[in-house]
Amino acid sequence: MKIDQNLIIDSNNKNLQTHQSHFNFLADSLSKKGKNVDAIVSRLKDFQVAIPSWALGAGGTRFGRFSYYGEPSNLEQKLEDVGLIHALTKTAGAVSLHIPWDIPTDYKAIKELANDLDIKFDAVNSNTFQDQEKAKESYKYGSLSNTSSAIREQAIQHNIDVINIGNQLGSKSLTVWLADGSCFPGQNNFQTALQNTENSLKTIYKKLPEDWNMLIEYKPYEPNFYSTVIQDWGTSFMLANACGDKAYSLVDLGHHLPNSNIEQIVSILMSKGKLGGFHFNDSKYGDDDLTVGSIKPYALFLIFNELVYGMQNNPQNPDLAWMIDASHNIKDPLEDLIQSLEAIQEAYAKALLIDQAELKAAQLNNDVVKCQEILQDAYRTDVRPLIEKARLDAGGVVHPIKTYRDLNIRNTLIKERGKNTVATGL
Amino acid sequence: MKIDQNLIIDSNNKNLQTHQSHFNFLADSLSKKGKNVDAIVSRLKDFQVAIPSWALGAGGTRFGRFSYYGEPSNLEQKLEDVGLIHALTKTAGAVSLHIPWDIPTDYKAIKELANDLDIKFDAVNSNTFQDQEKAKESYKYGSLSNTSSAIREQAIQHNIDVINIGNQLGSKSLTVWLADGSCFPGQNNFQTALQNTENSLKTIYKKLPEDWNMLIEYKPYEPNFYSTVIQDWGTSFMLANACGDKAYSLVDLGHHLPNSNIEQIVSILMSKGKLGGFHFNDSKYGDDDLTVGSIKPYALFLIFNELVYGMQNNPQNPDLAWMIDASHNIKDPLEDLIQSLEAIQEAYAKALLIDQAELKAAQLNNDVVKCQEILQDAYRTDVRPLIEKARLDAGGVVHPIKTYRDLNIRNTLIKERGKNTVATGL
Amino acid sequence: MKIDQNLIIDSNNKNLQTHQSHFNFLADSLSKKGKNVDAIVSRLKDFQVAIPSWALGAGGTRFGRFSYYGEPSNLEQKLEDVGLIHALTKTAGAVSLHIPWDIPTDYKAIKELANDLDIKFDAVNSNTFQDQEKAKESYKYGSLSNTSSAIREQAIQHNIDVINIGNQLGSKSLTVWLADGSCFPGQNNFQTALQNTENSLKTIYKKLPEDWNMLIEYKPYEPNFYSTVIQDWGTSFMLANACGDKAYSLVDLGHHLPNSNIEQIVSILMSKGKLGGFHFNDSKYGDDDLTVGSIKPYALFLIFNELVYGMQNNPQNPDLAWMIDASHNIKDPLEDLIQSLEAIQEAYAKALLIDQAELKAAQLNNDVVKCQEILQDAYRTDVRPLIEKARLDAGGVVHPIKTYRDLNIRNTLIKERGKNTVATGL
Amino acid sequence: MKIDQNLIIDSNNKNLQTHQSHFNFLADSLSKKGKNVDAIVSRLKDFQVAIPSWALGAGGTRFGRFSYYGEPSNLEQKLEDVGLIHALTKTAGAVSLHIPWDIPTDYKAIKELANDLDIKFDAVNSNTFQDQEKAKESYKYGSLSNTSSAIREQAIQHNIDVINIGNQLGSKSLTVWLADGSCFPGQNNFQTALQNTENSLKTIYKKLPEDWNMLIEYKPYEPNFYSTVIQDWGTSFMLANACGDKAYSLVDLGHHLPNSNIEQIVSILMSKGKLGGFHFNDSKYGDDDLTVGSIKPYALFLIFNELVYGMQNNPQNPDLAWMIDASHNIKDPLEDLIQSLEAIQEAYAKALLIDQAELKAAQLNNDVVKCQEILQDAYRTDVRPLIEKARLDAGGVVHPIKTYRDLNIRNTLIKERGKNTVATGL
Repeated sequence: MKIDQNLIIDSNNKNLQTHQSHFNFLADSLSKKGKNVDAIVSRLKDFQVAIPSWALGAGGTRFGRFSYYGEPSNLEQKLEDVGLIHALTKTAGAVSLHIPWDIPTDYKAIKELANDLDIKFDAVNSNTFQDQEKAKESYKYGSLSNTSSAIREQAIQHNIDVINIGNQLGSKSLTVWLADGSCFPGQNNFQTALQNTENSLKTIYKKLPEDWNMLIEYKPYEPNFYSTVIQDWGTSFMLANACGDKAYSLVDLGHHLPNSNIEQIVSILMSKGKLGGFHFNDSKYGDDDLTVGSIKPYALFLIFNELVYGMQNNPQNPDLAWMIDASHNIKDPLEDLIQSLEAIQEAYAKALLIDQAELKAAQLNNDVVKCQEILQDAYRTDVRPLIEKARLDAGGVVHPIKTYRDLNIRNTLIKERGKNTVATGL
Repeated sequence: MKIDQNLIIDSNNKNLQTHQSHFNFLADSLSKKGKNVDAIVSRLKDFQVAIPSWALGAGGTRFGRFSYYGEPSNLEQKLEDVGLIHALTKTAGAVSLHIPWDIPTDYKAIKELANDLDIKFDAVNSNTFQDQEKAKESYKYGSLSNTSSAIREQAIQHNIDVINIGNQLGSKSLTVWLADGSCFPGQNNFQTALQNTENSLKTIYKKLPEDWNMLIEYKPYEPNFYSTVIQDWGTSFMLANACGDKAYSLVDLGHHLPNSNIEQIVSILMSKGKLGGFHFNDSKYGDDDLTVGSIKPYALFLIFNELVYGMQNNPQNPDLAWMIDASHNIKDPLEDLIQSLEAIQEAYAKALLIDQAELKAAQLNNDVVKCQEILQDAYRTDVRPLIEKARLDAGGVVHPIKTYRDLNIRNTLIKERGKNTVATGL
Repeated sequence: MKIDQNLIIDSNNKNLQTHQSHFNFLADSLSKKGKNVDAIVSRLKDFQVAIPSWALGAGGTRFGRFSYYGEPSNLEQKLEDVGLIHALTKTAGAVSLHIPWDIPTDYKAIKELANDLDIKFDAVNSNTFQDQEKAKESYKYGSLSNTSSAIREQAIQHNIDVINIGNQLGSKSLTVWLADGSCFPGQNNFQTALQNTENSLKTIYKKLPEDWNMLIEYKPYEPNFYSTVIQDWGTSFMLANACGDKAYSLVDLGHHLPNSNIEQIVSILMSKGKLGGFHFNDSKYGDDDLTVGSIKPYALFLIFNELVYGMQNNPQNPDLAWMIDASHNIKDPLEDLIQSLEAIQEAYAKALLIDQAELKAAQLNNDVVKCQEILQDAYRTDVRPLIEKARLDAGGVVHPIKTYRDLNIRNTLIKERGKNTVATGL
Repeated sequence: MKIDQNLIIDSNNKNLQTHQSHFNFLADSLSKKGKNVDAIVSRLKDFQVAIPSWALGAGGTRFGRFSYYGEPSNLEQKLEDVGLIHALTKTAGAVSLHIPWDIPTDYKAIKELANDLDIKFDAVNSNTFQDQEKAKESYKYGSLSNTSSAIREQAIQHNIDVINIGNQLGSKSLTVWLADGSCFPGQNNFQTALQNTENSLKTIYKKLPEDWNMLIEYKPYEPNFYSTVIQDWGTSFMLANACGDKAYSLVDLGHHLPNSNIEQIVSILMSKGKLGGFHFNDSKYGDDDLTVGSIKPYALFLIFNELVYGMQNNPQNPDLAWMIDASHNIKDPLEDLIQSLEAIQEAYAKALLIDQAELKAAQLNNDVVKCQEILQDAYRTDVRPLIEKARLDAGGVVHPIKTYRDLNIRNTLIKERGKNTVATGL
């Protein structure tokens, strides 16, 4: 399905007056404080986050999975879903494919569909953490790090295949998340595993098209429970440096040990020109993959403060590949993704409100109280009218979740697709 | 020093117009959504948090301490400091004494001073984690839990002395924070240590005046690094039950293992009528004792949601003893406390905005997305105008930190007290 | 398959001399230090740990599962597997069934098979964390805690069914592990969820046969990622007290927040007569369900020190239901279980070596260095000869893993069952 | 005091027979398994760990400190204490000075004293986390990372002074532990702080004598509670690379986030030739600075497995500076240090028992069960006879703690020094 533009206009008409009243009051108030509201709205409008192709169905845990109705059962339907989110929010103009779950059968048709929905193909993701039917070799004991060269080669070739698929779609980067590691002390040799990984990544790197990037993800644990080869940003950074200029680290919010200061990692990677991508989600315990901003919104704001700072002050760092990497175990995946997108925009808008010059002055003055006041002043501002304005300017709706429900979108999807479809993926 | 009321009026006059414009807009907007703004402001006005007597000087770590200038060097000056904070914020109308650091020498004079500053004496705190000069017995290996009855008796007597001191000042509760535990496996017998503690607490409990409460704090570690006798809410709850109806658990935000769900603990204790007190601070790693709301303001909001729910639905639970329990290592302690008070009020105000009936309906409907929307709608609201209004109604100032700085209060204190005074305490 | 007793004798004959030499030297050395070696060996021989019926196939994670060859595909084969482990180790003389994965079709036959293998039916486990095909109601939003009485009733009835099944097999306790909780703040009402759970448990409790126990497990998170209704020992203890004398807490090693002092929890529960069961595994990060003793063997020893103390000093506490609750993601499940059993026996044997009287004296003397020396002296002792002796005395083998491999047991199972069978369970 | 050599001989005479019996049995048993016992004993004998000059008095926490009697009150007495430990254990033949706490007044005399006690001067430690009396600038807001060049220069000069002091004593490395960071979000600019730190370190690096190393420590938090400039190994490694070939990372066991895999960090740093030093202690919660091996001895063993592997396979890595960095809050510091030394030797001895060739073969074979068996076989071996033998061969005693007590050393120290002396340091 695709949302009729008239329905969007109707929906907005109901909420326009209230929106305008709030926006005008806020804009006036911010202008008095010297903020350039138009510039902020414009940056919000330009900000686009990729939706991964596996995120449109219900997720689960090792203890089971509860299906959601009307899940997309092929890549076309997944694009349709992203299109629905993008039509409402105008901030999800990209999709990130996971291979082999979502290999296009008709590239031309898929590209036309994406184009029609105003969706770009962002980073493509390889999968060497599961065995595929008919695969010759098993990744049970690792893939790019495996001691067996045959297994490494199969994993390398898979990554090259993924690049080729992405290349036909207009993607410009490959994301490598490596689950390789060990479950028990002694199981593998840390040095050999890292060296093999470095060699494998270098081989893949050589196959990157000229204008592509390689994004190297890190994670401390899960699905391996004793060690992970690329366990932290330091390892990822070291590998990116070993590969070359087009290799970068990718930060996933959920991939850190308890209490990590993620904003500092983001900041340092940007200062070194090596932050290539960012995966959004939220968590309380481990890699919980919850809705962005649902648990620690202030930490997200602090991270965005560093991202904004880096985007303004670190020309050595490339544009980032933004993606939501959450699991939708108990919510309608589309509603969940919309909530995530709103939380991201909120954190971004608030970070844009920080007066960097004033902050720098307070920092130089060691006025710790003032530094905190500056951050909190931005954070405590209710920026929803700014986000609504950016959405409206781009052709989206004032209240995406509300409109999604008013338009009975899930029911329409169930009617079209049936109740018990299951999306490929986790 | 005491702030001249005219200075407060002058200060407010400068900010009144902007405040009123913001308040009116917000009040109007909230009223349209069915909120009773007057009732919320009134509850904010009534909310008073105790300042502990040790919190008015600079804190430190085991690696050292950097002094702040103009620290209070006696109890009178400490009350003066609380008076200054209260005059500005009108939400710090209580002090919580720590014995033996702040034993009054002239009870009548101290009570008159407090009365003059509109400050009540809240819970009194005993200290059996340090040895005092001339003490007969040492607490090196524990106090109320010690295997030596002589040491236990000294610690019990100290708590009784604290009750007597508090009683002369109008306090109505005793807070027992027990550092007892062990640094190494095998060092103590868990069962004996807990049994001794229970017996000691019961002995102290018997000496409580009729209208007093005993508040039992828990903490997983520090200053003992292997085990703590009262390590968690379960142990505290068990001990409170063993003592009797006037014994309660006290929750300190910083006293939990990583990733604890503190709001659930608060909720369950209130449902059982056993939450007696609450200590505010914030932390990223351990018991960091940072400014309230400086690290995890959303978690604080979620906790306040449970506190508000409990205050409305759990008549079995008593009024709580609220206290800030932070350490001021690098900020002016008075500014730090004002920032904490504002963060507390903010979380409280936002929690009061939650429509509990609507939330309950969404919960019954398992509409998880809606539940989140309800909480986030309240949280994303900029409630600062409500807090300003409550402060103004009570005779405080619109912007406490700003006024504190405009009035050069710290400089006046330094002039009056000298630069290098050191407050008793941590 | 069943191992021919002659093969066991053959296997032992090869290793007997070395074993005896080591045992004699150790026994002599321990006797000189005043230890009663016979009594220790005898206690080791008596110690039996249940194998859960779901643990005999490969486990997995939410990212996938790598099968193991020759997995049991029905309850009979699972019993066979437990029988193999028990024949070798003589310490796995019990099985713990998980319902509905392992409902017997022919009770008489199953009981005869178990009897033949010298295996008892220990605690039975209910499952209300997954939806079963044809189930009327879904547990997506909770089971015993659900706001819907129809769902609660279905979950209660399932537990009663489990009791009835267990009763026909000779089980004497029901283990309730409740995954109920929430993934997002606001999703459920903590107080209602706990109250519903308490009421549900009480209803189940009333259906317990006279000589049965109910064991209430707790866990902080997973599969719910914001809150769990029975999140910690305090909640479990409170519920057990509410239910009655036959309700107990069950401790699973992996179900704790980072850095928890589990041995203290074990000790306190035993002192209150409320520790009913214990689930063994090991972990580095979360509920990793790794082989017992593979990550933190010293912590396991400290826990066993408390268990031994409690078994000797807390007559108010019942006999415990011991079970291994690990997941076998990359090892042969049978070998993994044998490694777990050996680690358990090792920790138990070392704990039995602690001179409790000497330890108590050192504790009373606050001789912290000595306390540590006493524990470390026991822990540093190589107790493998004692375990070998206990196994030999009971009819098992000196080196279970070695014999398992020498006898090519896995290959025989693959031949009998086929390569690609999949065991029911996680 | 110095221990009379005859007393050592007497002490050993009492224990020699038992020792020899145990050693012979173990040596025989290990030889049968193909181990070269002499080589292991010889490596144990050669292993020397530095005692830091601040570790000889009682430590404390921010909540207070309980003194120990007979503490050394000057550098000479501190050396004397190290000498006592070394005489007993023969494994503490080095001291690591902390400046400005332990600046020698008479270099010649100090060197003679050290020489007489067979003690070398290992890495010297600078201190820019505290303000010294009469210091011009304060480190309250940072030292090498400070935004003020005057403060940075003072901190740089201090490090250069420390090098000069060390140089006169024969030290060959400077350890830089930087407490710099922030307590609140926004307080400092992460990029500026790191850049300033890098520049400062480079300036110090240039002043290193030709044959010196610079060791850069990292730590996630404390005494700063929001961020630390050198927060993890990745940052330390980056800085060491920026400085040059003589700059290395230093790993302190307690300086990691919960659940960190430290052995992997050690292994990777060695493979890159960048592990320069190692600080021993143990912890359950944070940087608890407990006795080595008292909480997680298996983790220590796994780390030693990597250290041994690296020493054998990574010629690119330098010899390491080993030091105990523990705090002695409730034990006699000398006994505590002896317990630490024994735990270190135990872990080292067990790691030396691992058959690296067999392990490698099992790893290549993905025989995870076997890998674990190999590690556990080594770990479960009671290696105390090997350590006793190494000590005896070097002229030390069989049972250091026992002899220390038998000889009434603490009492002698109290008599010589008085009861209430306080050692400089933490």
